Amino acid sequence: MATRLILDTDPGIDDALAILLLAASPEIILEAITVTHGNTTVDKCLANALKLADFAGLQGVPIARGASSPLVKSLTVAEETHGDGGLGYATLPDSKILVSPKSAVDTIIDLVHQYPNEITILAIGPLTNIALAIHKDPSIIKLIDRIVVMGGSIHFPGNMTPDCEYNVFCDPEAFDIVLRAGLDFTLVPLDVTYKCLFTKGHVAKLSDARPAVKTFIEDSTRFYMEFHDEYQSIDGCAINDPLAAAILIKPDLVELRDYYMTIELKGEHTKGKTSVDHYKVLGKPANAKVAMEVDVEGFMDFFIERVKTL
Amino acid sequence: MATRLILDTDPGIDDALAILLLAASPEIILEAITVTHGNTTVDKCLANALKLADFAGLQGVPIARGASSPLVKSLTVAEETHGDGGLGYATLPDSKILVSPKSAVDTIIDLVHQYPNEITILAIGPLTNIALAIHKDPSIIKLIDRIVVMGGSIHFPGNMTPDCEYNVFCDPEAFDIVLRAGLDFTLVPLDVTYKCLFTKGHVAKLSDARPAVKTFIEDSTRFYMEFHDEYQSIDGCAINDPLAAAILIKPDLVELRDYYMTIELKGEHTKGKTSVDHYKVLGKPANAKVAMEVDVEGFMDFFIERVKTL
Amino acid sequence: MATRLILDTDPGIDDALAILLLAASPEIILEAITVTHGNTTVDKCLANALKLADFAGLQGVPIARGASSPLVKSLTVAEETHGDGGLGYATLPDSKILVSPKSAVDTIIDLVHQYPNEITILAIGPLTNIALAIHKDPSIIKLIDRIVVMGGSIHFPGNMTPDCEYNVFCDPEAFDIVLRAGLDFTLVPLDVTYKCLFTKGHVAKLSDARPAVKTFIEDSTRFYMEFHDEYQSIDGCAINDPLAAAILIKPDLVELRDYYMTIELKGEHTKGKTSVDHYKVLGKPANAKVAMEVDVEGFMDFFIERVKTL
Amino acid sequence: MATRLILDTDPGIDDALAILLLAASPEIILEAITVTHGNTTVDKCLANALKLADFAGLQGVPIARGASSPLVKSLTVAEETHGDGGLGYATLPDSKILVSPKSAVDTIIDLVHQYPNEITILAIGPLTNIALAIHKDPSIIKLIDRIVVMGGSIHFPGNMTPDCEYNVFCDPEAFDIVLRAGLDFTLVPLDVTYKCLFTKGHVAKLSDARPAVKTFIEDSTRFYMEFHDEYQSIDGCAINDPLAAAILIKPDLVELRDYYMTIELKGEHTKGKTSVDHYKVLGKPANAKVAMEVDVEGFMDFFIERVKTL
Repeated sequence: MATRLILDTDPGIDDALAILLLAASPEIILEAITVTHGNTTVDKCLANALKLADFAGLQGVPIARGASSPLVKSLTVAEETHGDGGLGYATLPDSKILVSPKSAVDTIIDLVHQYPNEITILAIGPLTNIALAIHKDPSIIKLIDRIVVMGGSIHFPGNMTPDCEYNVFCDPEAFDIVLRAGLDFTLVPLDVTYKCLFTKGHVAKLSDARPAVKTFIEDSTRFYMEFHDEYQSIDGCAINDPLAAAILIKPDLVELRDYYMTIELKGEHTKGKTSVDHYKVLGKPANAKVAMEVDVEGFMDFFIERVKTL
Repeated sequence: MATRLILDTDPGIDDALAILLLAASPEIILEAITVTHGNTTVDKCLANALKLADFAGLQGVPIARGASSPLVKSLTVAEETHGDGGLGYATLPDSKILVSPKSAVDTIIDLVHQYPNEITILAIGPLTNIALAIHKDPSIIKLIDRIVVMGGSIHFPGNMTPDCEYNVFCDPEAFDIVLRAGLDFTLVPLDVTYKCLFTKGHVAKLSDARPAVKTFIEDSTRFYMEFHDEYQSIDGCAINDPLAAAILIKPDLVELRDYYMTIELKGEHTKGKTSVDHYKVLGKPANAKVAMEVDVEGFMDFFIERVKTL
Repeated sequence: MATRLILDTDPGIDDALAILLLAASPEIILEAITVTHGNTTVDKCLANALKLADFAGLQGVPIARGASSPLVKSLTVAEETHGDGGLGYATLPDSKILVSPKSAVDTIIDLVHQYPNEITILAIGPLTNIALAIHKDPSIIKLIDRIVVMGGSIHFPGNMTPDCEYNVFCDPEAFDIVLRAGLDFTLVPLDVTYKCLFTKGHVAKLSDARPAVKTFIEDSTRFYMEFHDEYQSIDGCAINDPLAAAILIKPDLVELRDYYMTIELKGEHTKGKTSVDHYKVLGKPANAKVAMEVDVEGFMDFFIERVKTL
Repeated sequence: MATRLILDTDPGIDDALAILLLAASPEIILEAITVTHGNTTVDKCLANALKLADFAGLQGVPIARGASSPLVKSLTVAEETHGDGGLGYATLPDSKILVSPKSAVDTIIDLVHQYPNEITILAIGPLTNIALAIHKDPSIIKLIDRIVVMGGSIHFPGNMTPDCEYNVFCDPEAFDIVLRAGLDFTLVPLDVTYKCLFTKGHVAKLSDARPAVKTFIEDSTRFYMEFHDEYQSIDGCAINDPLAAAILIKPDLVELRDYYMTIELKGEHTKGKTSVDHYKVLGKPANAKVAMEVDVEGFMDFFIERVKTL
């Protein structure tokens, strides 16, 4: 059966690749794209979402503007990672799609009520919109089927501070709210996404993709690869968000473990650290499923094969 | 050239194995054993240290009583891990060695001044004694050759809380003091020690050791293995402390990386978390060498070969 | 000139008295009452606001439902202080006023845009609604004339924890957001409100008020006095909120001081502590005006005289 | 009956006045002066203590060197408050008294055992020495009659940060250790000491004191008054430490209240805040007696009268 999906996103290079993957996947009914601040400002993210939807053939999907800043802390953007416009060296034509008149928060609330127990939320940016939707209408908590979140790092180093992943860093209080809400919560952390390095070899395999698709992926990831090389001495780029999208369609790409998870909001050095109780010393019931192992080449093959169909 | 060593320890099963290894190593001149609270109370740890020194032929080494509690927090002991007496199922005869009349702190200070720039400290328990020695006489900081500390966990789960290793947990403020002091600081964290699982297969290789040595190792580690099995579902036991001792003699057993390291003293969930700035996002100079890779079988072979010589 | 006011409130006994005072004051144009969680649930607070508006002759004022929970932490209510229904022993007839179809957040945003630079916000509950309005539309920050907040304690003990006042306790993150927003921010803390103890002697002075008004004040404050007596050994009750309302009309009732103020969000014992830099040791510019002295009998006389006109 | 006293001090101008007051008081048997870092370095404080003892006729009292730095944090000194040498504009001749060969910590431990249940400790600097003595020999806890500490601020502003008094600021972890130890603990906070402002009028009353005494008090407090004027806009100077000394002799100078007290070690803005549970909301038993009211002129008269006898 197809999955009714709300994609909450801050495009962003890897967000763009996730959108392409979803657009190429008939198993997904994309009910809405809700946009948040994160990789860049919400205005730029929104413009990117509109262009990407147009480019990927998602003309019928409502695209809603969301939060322009985190709940409590001040706004952070990552233009050194994703470029001034948010899509690296890639450019896309102006979009003909109009922004939805409904806000991201109301879009989420209304769709959850329209399709009770059917909606999956895939959140690949900071969780501000989700936290605000839950805050505005707590009744949706019991009506959301599940949420899959790209974010956090468990044993892997953070990519923003030594202990903190970027999406969590952007709005740690929102992450805490969503984690504590009692949803069916799946996390796709850096521990698996940083194993999935997309390289020039993978780009080469796109030679028989539609030229515009190949060019977009090549141009956007080239910028991202330069960032990974310069800042993290990594060859290739970690395409975090498409992995989180892929497991909606092919769950066996990752191994999920049931964990009791916390996020540190008070630490001096470790604010935003997502921890799991691996040895069960705290005696608390699991509150999250966390992807801890990944079939790297299985995922890469799946991603490449799917975007070739666009 | 031989290494003049002060061993600061809280025996403890794996501390006992480290003492055996040091006693079996002619490259080490053991100047003193200073004892701290940790795996059990300082009184029991001291009794164990005296017995172990007698057992291992270290009759001439001064053994000094140290701190009975952490600097700031309250005392913790781990008798579920190391047994009521601290040595698992092993028993040793009463010791004929007398406790040194000098305290652990004064022993450290005096030896450092006696052998300026020559003393290595191997600290395999909570760092209370070292912090107190530095506090009492800060002039020793420049005169200590290096300190090697078994403790902390970097990417690996903590063994006391989800983010905190036991030695650090027992006195996080002392760890912070020693880390910030400006010593040549080497850390041997769980990331490497928990790869070194000592199993019944390793015990079997001790068949041609001196029977008393074999019996001691077998009886002490059997308790430890039961703990690892029950609490951490681990087959074998992590002999953390002997690895830290071994790298004094055979440095190439581990790969050390230069890192800027911090310890969290304020967090709600992450107090005692030792973090390193893997991607160098903080722009701070390295303050520690951290063992991140280990030659597991090389270490096991070395340990077994050495204790057979006792 | 009259003051265009939005009252953000969680009635609550002292909130009720503030509403009566505002209704009795021709200097105030009450544009809206926005309701929040706080002294009791938002639903009960809303019911109380509707009844109070009806009772006080405020039939034309829009009354909007606001946040049902704090931004980040979990909901707290104070029924031991304000009674099950939130108004002590007082009862009021059902209200004929309907709840506004517009949410509290949108009511605030729309009024600020309708009357740029004219709106004063008087916030006498947790600041959740204000923080959410600023978050949803940051452009209102420059268009709000000023905000007067009843909350916090500077040198005075907290009334919820040893260091934290109740309104701040209910949503410390919201308080932080509003404090940091850059508004013209006036605080009326416990330091002045707990000097304004309303006693049976003051009730007696209401003998020539309209009987329903006298009965309401007498019945609601009797419960409040019992709480103050039992929990704080105070004779009388601190009518915090009417003082904050009164200074809109009679500013000279208090002495305001310009201070750099912070709120602690991380402390173990002091979470929610509002501090001011009295001796200017931090060298930061003032970000708040804080009422530190009060003309107690002047205020009591003013309050009594005004409610007699209802 | 006379009080056997250990004075733990960091002279410092107001420490000097406390030493003069104690020297002038036959009710006190001064068993030792133990010196700590604080108002200036321990070396300067020690030199001052030696000179002051000589000056005040305390030649027989052992004077012991104590901690050169706080337990955990880095050293702070306050030379803008107390002058380069620590005694303002006052100078004293070199002392003929030798430093005790015994450390401050051992001096405390030995005296407590020598006079079980008889020793009062008056601590008017950071509590490092006391915390270290307790740590080294916890058995003294039950043998100390009482400890009187000058430090902290309850409702009064801090004099170092907005929430933190200087002695506590210098070693908050030591304060926490001593507070939690279970001693009979009396605090003399800024709430009372900052009411005791020593002015030029008080200096004038010393006209018939011994000229050297008058000159010393005049010269030392003149510097202190300049500091109070420049930094705190206070006319006169708060002679904190002599008040703590005075209550040993004349307890009715202050009103002590039994409180449950905490110190914040984790806060971002409030580290070092000493709080009391005024309204007993926490339900914890009292762990401290806190001076909350003071007979200001009674104290000033007492101080002046006593130092005239020197």
